[in-house]
Amino acid sequence: MAYAQRTSGMRASAIRALFAVANRPEVVSLAGGMPYLSSLPLEALAADVAEMVRADGQVALQYGSGQGIPELREQICQVMSLEGIDAHPDDVVVTVGSQMALDLTTRIFCDPGDVILAEAPSYVGALGTFAAYQANVVHVEMDHDGLVPEALEAAIDACRRAGRRIKFLYTIPNFHNPAGVTMALERRPVIAELCRRAGIAILEDNPYGLLGFDDVTYRAIRADDSENVVYLGSFSKTFAPGLRVGWVLAPHAVREKLVLANESALLNPPVFNQMMISRYLSGFDWLSQIKTYQQLYLERRDVMLEALEDHLPDGTTWTRPAGGFYVWVTLPEGFDTAAMLPRAVTARVAYVPGTAFYADGLGSRQMRLSYCYPTPSRIEEGVRRLAGVIDGELDVMRTFGTGAQAARALRGPSSPSPDTA
Amino acid sequence: MAYAQRTSGMRASAIRALFAVANRPEVVSLAGGMPYLSSLPLEALAADVAEMVRADGQVALQYGSGQGIPELREQICQVMSLEGIDAHPDDVVVTVGSQMALDLTTRIFCDPGDVILAEAPSYVGALGTFAAYQANVVHVEMDHDGLVPEALEAAIDACRRAGRRIKFLYTIPNFHNPAGVTMALERRPVIAELCRRAGIAILEDNPYGLLGFDDVTYRAIRADDSENVVYLGSFSKTFAPGLRVGWVLAPHAVREKLVLANESALLNPPVFNQMMISRYLSGFDWLSQIKTYQQLYLERRDVMLEALEDHLPDGTTWTRPAGGFYVWVTLPEGFDTAAMLPRAVTARVAYVPGTAFYADGLGSRQMRLSYCYPTPSRIEEGVRRLAGVIDGELDVMRTFGTGAQAARALRGPSSPSPDTA
Repeated sequence: MAYAQRTSGMRASAIRALFAVANRPEVVSLAGGMPYLSSLPLEALAADVAEMVRADGQVALQYGSGQGIPELREQICQVMSLEGIDAHPDDVVVTVGSQMALDLTTRIFCDPGDVILAEAPSYVGALGTFAAYQANVVHVEMDHDGLVPEALEAAIDACRRAGRRIKFLYTIPNFHNPAGVTMALERRPVIAELCRRAGIAILEDNPYGLLGFDDVTYRAIRADDSENVVYLGSFSKTFAPGLRVGWVLAPHAVREKLVLANESALLNPPVFNQMMISRYLSGFDWLSQIKTYQQLYLERRDVMLEALEDHLPDGTTWTRPAGGFYVWVTLPEGFDTAAMLPRAVTARVAYVPGTAFYADGLGSRQMRLSYCYPTPSRIEEGVRRLAGVIDGELDVMRTFGTGAQAARALRGPSSPSPDTA
Repeated sequence: MAYAQRTSGMRASAIRALFAVANRPEVVSLAGGMPYLSSLPLEALAADVAEMVRADGQVALQYGSGQGIPELREQICQVMSLEGIDAHPDDVVVTVGSQMALDLTTRIFCDPGDVILAEAPSYVGALGTFAAYQANVVHVEMDHDGLVPEALEAAIDACRRAGRRIKFLYTIPNFHNPAGVTMALERRPVIAELCRRAGIAILEDNPYGLLGFDDVTYRAIRADDSENVVYLGSFSKTFAPGLRVGWVLAPHAVREKLVLANESALLNPPVFNQMMISRYLSGFDWLSQIKTYQQLYLERRDVMLEALEDHLPDGTTWTRPAGGFYVWVTLPEGFDTAAMLPRAVTARVAYVPGTAFYADGLGSRQMRLSYCYPTPSRIEEGVRRLAGVIDGELDVMRTFGTGAQAARALRGPSSPSPDTA
């Protein structure tokens, strides 16, 4: 059978097979982005969904609107108001997770060859989606205050000079996946202004915004720019990912296209799931649940940072996330984290190699570690095992040189999997 | 903002606004394809989903596999065995409704300008998806035994001579939406052989296959061709659409691409919904529920056919479906069902104009009537109102000529909505 051209870019990553092994219970996985759901009030949720089926089963189990149910879209506006966003439910489109929002946004904006600007590094799932639409990612430098405005300006200029058409800037301003940094508040209006002037939309992806550790909720870029920002949100991290409910807030004309694209893709997002979330937001103390998550992840972050301090060799650096799930580790010159992964899995610890988060092959000295799912003692044990593998590599490198050659087969962009989401 | 080229083909249909009116309770809608869910055992389903959340909530609410959960894929193979299909769960991909299966299949196969062969008429939602990927639909004649093999052969030859590349034949063999006909069993191997010889895959879309009225389950095309057929199935009509669970069964190489495309689009279909369906299939008498649906829809079909016989004027013809949801009505020469729709809605009855089911502007004398959702007495009343509108049109036409000019604004392919699904 003859496939579409775009299909040639869809390749199973070589690390997928490894992750199958990494999911064994004896392996400490610092790779996945799975929320820790044990703190959810399952008994009360069970009673609530039963009540929903009894009272509204015929609506919950029926087809619905391509834009999403109105009650939930209103509640989503309340959730976003925590980040300073003043939005109307008419401008919200409910999607099957915010991954689908990424897919639909790329679908309506990008022709093959169009450029998307994205942080270096960037979310692996977004890179996979951009590749599926044959868009080209140009990475823009970050520092510990997030995306660097001067680097953004330079990237825009360089694309212009090369005659390349930029469609949007894709950014994760808060508790970045994978970099673990947050865009400084004072940079946000600067970046918004740069993009407006250049006629480039901003795709603001904010799944972790409410999961900060310092009792601060950062003001969204969208809060000060309703015309040029397409905002993506999700209940996967603040509630649970298994219902796959996310959303887009977009300027009116964009929203209309997104609804048509949503209908073309799947008719409507599942009504059942939307009603469950809507009932959760109105009937449960969801803000307390978010506080519980914050405490849980804060404790785990601290354990991980302390373990890194205790066990990792000199010359290794890492970020200190103020929220979210991820720490971004940079190993000394000469390391290749993709090449090292099989040895790490043999030592019963897993991570995601840095190259997964770049469209251009960079990131070979980096790795993403997540602290969201394993218990604190497992995190400590995982970092200890990882340190052992790194020390072993250092010994080998002193003897034989770097492992870069061995890594070629493991590199390159690939479709995301829930393990790396 | 500058959209992708494909986005220019995404237009809200002029009939959408009318359907908003048509959803008012005083209007008898013969337009929608919504299953009649009143016969579902809601009390037992409520208890079951509560039990699921209590016992397996942390799995149901977590991320999952891009291919779908193994238990459900095994059960799907059992469902398909009713149609003579011998399949392995490894070759099944769970999707967010079979609409998403259509989207993913088109995504991996079709470049802009590729040709898809489809019955004339064809499912409006498929036409919308094909248009979103900028594929060109070439319609192939049907008769009361479904797709005509000679017409298929001629269409393949004509495309070949014109240098056009055909990617697949899209067909709904059983209880066709919208045509209400079924592909004769003896035609199926002939059509399969024609496609194999021409190197064209078959996309067999079968949401209604188990909803036949004559206690016959038709053998799927896929049952006799596992190499060249991509088969789409759905729980939307045999159970309920609100969970959005469908599937694709595909040859191994295609299945691999579909999983990557599914992950790129939405990471994974909701685990919660898959587990609900899996529990439904193992814990409930789902075959009896299907029998209940068959009886329900058979009664409504009979009421509709009798009402059409009683009320529609001479020169009007319609199909007699042996299953499924739809009757396809052809009005006398000179009618324009799109132009007539506003008057029908004013008379408190709605249908879908025939042009929605053609990519090429044909179908102006046709309309699709569905009998799945309204009660028998409402169906009778709806047809009576429709007949009044048609009689009124006949009077006008005798006086002023045809209404074709007025219809232009209402024509053309458009994104599907649940109203027309």
